[in-house]
Amino acid sequence: MHTLTTALAQINTEARALFGQGKVADYIPALAQVPPRQFGMAVALVDGSTFHVGDAHTPFSLQSITKLFTFVLALKAIGEDLWKRVGREPSGAAFNSMVQLETEHGIPRNPFINAGALVITDILTTRYAHLDYALLGALRRLTDDPDLSWNAAVAKSERDTAHRNMAMAYFMKSHGNFANAPELVLDNYCRQCATEMNCAQLAQATMFLANAGRDLGRDGCPDEQFLSPDEARRVNALLLTCGAYDAAGDFAYRIGLPVKTGVGGGIVAIAPGVGTVAVWAPELDAKGNSVLGAFALERLVKLTGWNHT
Amino acid sequence: MHTLTTALAQINTEARALFGQGKVADYIPALAQVPPRQFGMAVALVDGSTFHVGDAHTPFSLQSITKLFTFVLALKAIGEDLWKRVGREPSGAAFNSMVQLETEHGIPRNPFINAGALVITDILTTRYAHLDYALLGALRRLTDDPDLSWNAAVAKSERDTAHRNMAMAYFMKSHGNFANAPELVLDNYCRQCATEMNCAQLAQATMFLANAGRDLGRDGCPDEQFLSPDEARRVNALLLTCGAYDAAGDFAYRIGLPVKTGVGGGIVAIAPGVGTVAVWAPELDAKGNSVLGAFALERLVKLTGWNHT
Amino acid sequence: MHTLTTALAQINTEARALFGQGKVADYIPALAQVPPRQFGMAVALVDGSTFHVGDAHTPFSLQSITKLFTFVLALKAIGEDLWKRVGREPSGAAFNSMVQLETEHGIPRNPFINAGALVITDILTTRYAHLDYALLGALRRLTDDPDLSWNAAVAKSERDTAHRNMAMAYFMKSHGNFANAPELVLDNYCRQCATEMNCAQLAQATMFLANAGRDLGRDGCPDEQFLSPDEARRVNALLLTCGAYDAAGDFAYRIGLPVKTGVGGGIVAIAPGVGTVAVWAPELDAKGNSVLGAFALERLVKLTGWNHT
Amino acid sequence: MHTLTTALAQINTEARALFGQGKVADYIPALAQVPPRQFGMAVALVDGSTFHVGDAHTPFSLQSITKLFTFVLALKAIGEDLWKRVGREPSGAAFNSMVQLETEHGIPRNPFINAGALVITDILTTRYAHLDYALLGALRRLTDDPDLSWNAAVAKSERDTAHRNMAMAYFMKSHGNFANAPELVLDNYCRQCATEMNCAQLAQATMFLANAGRDLGRDGCPDEQFLSPDEARRVNALLLTCGAYDAAGDFAYRIGLPVKTGVGGGIVAIAPGVGTVAVWAPELDAKGNSVLGAFALERLVKLTGWNHT
Repeated sequence: MHTLTTALAQINTEARALFGQGKVADYIPALAQVPPRQFGMAVALVDGSTFHVGDAHTPFSLQSITKLFTFVLALKAIGEDLWKRVGREPSGAAFNSMVQLETEHGIPRNPFINAGALVITDILTTRYAHLDYALLGALRRLTDDPDLSWNAAVAKSERDTAHRNMAMAYFMKSHGNFANAPELVLDNYCRQCATEMNCAQLAQATMFLANAGRDLGRDGCPDEQFLSPDEARRVNALLLTCGAYDAAGDFAYRIGLPVKTGVGGGIVAIAPGVGTVAVWAPELDAKGNSVLGAFALERLVKLTGWNHT
Repeated sequence: MHTLTTALAQINTEARALFGQGKVADYIPALAQVPPRQFGMAVALVDGSTFHVGDAHTPFSLQSITKLFTFVLALKAIGEDLWKRVGREPSGAAFNSMVQLETEHGIPRNPFINAGALVITDILTTRYAHLDYALLGALRRLTDDPDLSWNAAVAKSERDTAHRNMAMAYFMKSHGNFANAPELVLDNYCRQCATEMNCAQLAQATMFLANAGRDLGRDGCPDEQFLSPDEARRVNALLLTCGAYDAAGDFAYRIGLPVKTGVGGGIVAIAPGVGTVAVWAPELDAKGNSVLGAFALERLVKLTGWNHT
Repeated sequence: MHTLTTALAQINTEARALFGQGKVADYIPALAQVPPRQFGMAVALVDGSTFHVGDAHTPFSLQSITKLFTFVLALKAIGEDLWKRVGREPSGAAFNSMVQLETEHGIPRNPFINAGALVITDILTTRYAHLDYALLGALRRLTDDPDLSWNAAVAKSERDTAHRNMAMAYFMKSHGNFANAPELVLDNYCRQCATEMNCAQLAQATMFLANAGRDLGRDGCPDEQFLSPDEARRVNALLLTCGAYDAAGDFAYRIGLPVKTGVGGGIVAIAPGVGTVAVWAPELDAKGNSVLGAFALERLVKLTGWNHT
Repeated sequence: MHTLTTALAQINTEARALFGQGKVADYIPALAQVPPRQFGMAVALVDGSTFHVGDAHTPFSLQSITKLFTFVLALKAIGEDLWKRVGREPSGAAFNSMVQLETEHGIPRNPFINAGALVITDILTTRYAHLDYALLGALRRLTDDPDLSWNAAVAKSERDTAHRNMAMAYFMKSHGNFANAPELVLDNYCRQCATEMNCAQLAQATMFLANAGRDLGRDGCPDEQFLSPDEARRVNALLLTCGAYDAAGDFAYRIGLPVKTGVGGGIVAIAPGVGTVAVWAPELDAKGNSVLGAFALERLVKLTGWNHT
């Protein structure tokens, strides 16, 4: 039996022993209703083989993990010009802090804190008449799932309580760093965040980052150079330094791989040249990252040594 | 000839020598077109006598001076309960800072910085179906001018560029400190700021603060206890510590009277038990206060000793 | 019987009912041992009459109240030049905050927060070989008490734990705003803070601020113009806006007089043209101001109307 | 000819074309006198081969690069307990900011900003009677150079102007996060920073980080497991997220390797499993990192692909 199968089984048992140590995100009413005691994990290797355990085929709300995809779309759309509107330094502050935004004159620290992701969505809103479908189109292609979509109830729930994100959007607009109406961009942003995927799909959809920019071909679908190798490396560098909110340093120290986390409880990790790992468990720690997810990744790199590559 | 007449004449000459030392507010397009070289001053004494010099009858945009009137209206409407939603400490930061708002969890420092004034307008928006007319009603009664109104072009100009104020309103809403839709409150706020008065009217309209809360009666209109004596004293205390943005300490040091300033170039000062002074000159210093206005007040208290009372 | 005698008796009774609502400053070990249930109050009028109640003749540690005297000495020594090294705006932050100091490049907001008082002591350290005796000399003259001194045990206790003040001094030195060795200035500063006086003496010592800069003469000692009338007014303005740490606005609102508070539990208030009030009770509120002291002043101005002048 | 020889020769030519684009650190008088137009680079591979170009044998002041070595010594001395006193998150602020220190109650963000390095030196000061010799001992062993030392003139120059670091040390002491006298720790810290090495030595001294914790043996000196493989990986993760002050994200994006930079103009980079690179050129950019050094590393990883591993 493949050692990965064994490793995942072991991690599944160990992780589930931690149920109850975190709590489900409660600031978005629709998310607060997700049953907490779930855990799924999927691994996709660059050779095309895949592995999974637990609730790896249960769809969950991607939330901030979508910031990874929108950032990549914006990079494809306008290239390095996007750095005129957003930085690439770790923020050293909570994901929704306005203090830094004021100190730095409306230029968000990086594309993965909320303010930065809003700028990215603003860029894409300018580019696409229907951003949600452009984004869904890309995600459907990457996952080969034509039914992939966003959850309208979650999107509405988030939009109704998006006061702080509205505040950030208007603040950036006051600094000339927001092209569209905040209301419109927030509509897109909340739909984007409500996109649902399962672990197996998420691991597959991010494969291009582990595979030097190249998405793997599947039945009747040729492989595709989604990003250049150098772009893929740079996205990974950014995920390593900024992918886990203000716990990025801790994640790098414990796990040592590029990751993107979301308050839906999902985390995706990239092992460049090796493969991708998607993990999901709704209970979060105080910094908004999945408790079981972080544990599972730490165990996996310990068992596989993927972070020494 | 009354010594005040002499004093005003002298100050008029001295002040006009300072033309060119400041610059007209340029962040509101409609205000940027006001001819800069204007100076008016009006004094109203508690005995009913009035004095004026220069452009004391030219209407100007009250801007933040209206925060004094809306605060008084809110105090009359809900009393000391308003302190649950806004503080009464000097801010120690620029009038539109968001840093403090984040540090202090959405409770503005005082009713005279922008965030605080927005909360006050939110309180009044809940209270009045048509706040602008409720406010105009009060101001028309205080000035005996049935035609007093707001400048629609200025209001629109401010509303179109109110991104930062929208950001603050949404931020407070995210902290549960904003009852109405930010869009609606901002409509009211921008009309409020665009209210126009001349110096003579402004001195008259604030007389109740110098006269232990009592507005002076005029032809066919009896005097009226607008605020209690203790409330009037407290409003004055607040004006003394918070009325000049982050130059409040400097104003207290140099002038020593309760004041409220506005970026339209107006300043009103209260000499409790003595009278009121309204001064206007559009050129502003770096902190957004009228250069000639502050100079004129400093000279007046030097000549009259009103700040030693 | 004089109404003030009646008022003080009534306030004494009411204030003592509040024992237990605050707590004695515990960050200075020597101060933590002061018995909490004490209350004294003294009033000195510009006509030379004096009134007192309770523990008005028990010496207490002046602490930050000395910042008023050192500021006045520095103003006498170098005049308005001191504004090159310290601001005169309310701080809007805790008395020992370093954030503001960094934002504003080592220039403290005003002379009454710790950083500002350290700059003032630095100025006086440059001026006087033995600052503590120069300061004691002035205070002995103002109180006619040749034995007035500082408490060596309290001074040592404060010096031993002065890490934060040392941090501020070094920080200002790194910005070029500190002339002497921080160690030396802190020695002076801690002795200064440990100066002891009783309420009767404190009311007398600050009389020049209520009396247009003029200290009242006493037996065999002629009166003296300690400050110019205009300087006295300006000091009072500064006390009104900055004298009660980050509760200055609240004090102005409730009490409406220039004050200086200290963590020893003392407060002195100035009623310009009328007299001075010193009050002492060791229990402090969360902002470091005397609970009974603030209450007593609020009651006194309510009973006398001194804050309407 | 080895391709690395060719690459270094090419980079040497390209880098020197950039002379004049940065400026030598001027806040330490002794460093300001270093001739700016120098450039050296050395590579050491895990197979024991070495390569160098330009001024690779000219000693320079390590400055903050020593923080890497003191951190490793502290990790060896007290293990993971050190995380009780310092964090491991990127700072998102300048290397000598006090704002963050106040917000986070005296716990520095990571061991590589000044405040964090001071805590590390405090830990080592508690551990070693003569820290400078303990540190020199370790560095002499890692470089096989018994004469390696610190420059006394530079150390004194830094100590004389260490006001800001003193401020940070006292501030942390006020929060209970500093065990020794700040004066003593600063003596050690300034000597530590003044340690001198050349590029060839620096590449050799950090080899254990590229070689899974194992220092390579040399003539008559056996190899040694300096850190465990997992510890080495974690140090590298920390260098990747926090090694370049507030340009860490930019370095990760452009270069993608763990690095530590110093204001002496040196940078060391680790290519795990491959080797180490030391580069030196005194001219700095606005964030205090070597202009030519960063350029050279970016070119090297482009030419070798080491950052894709």
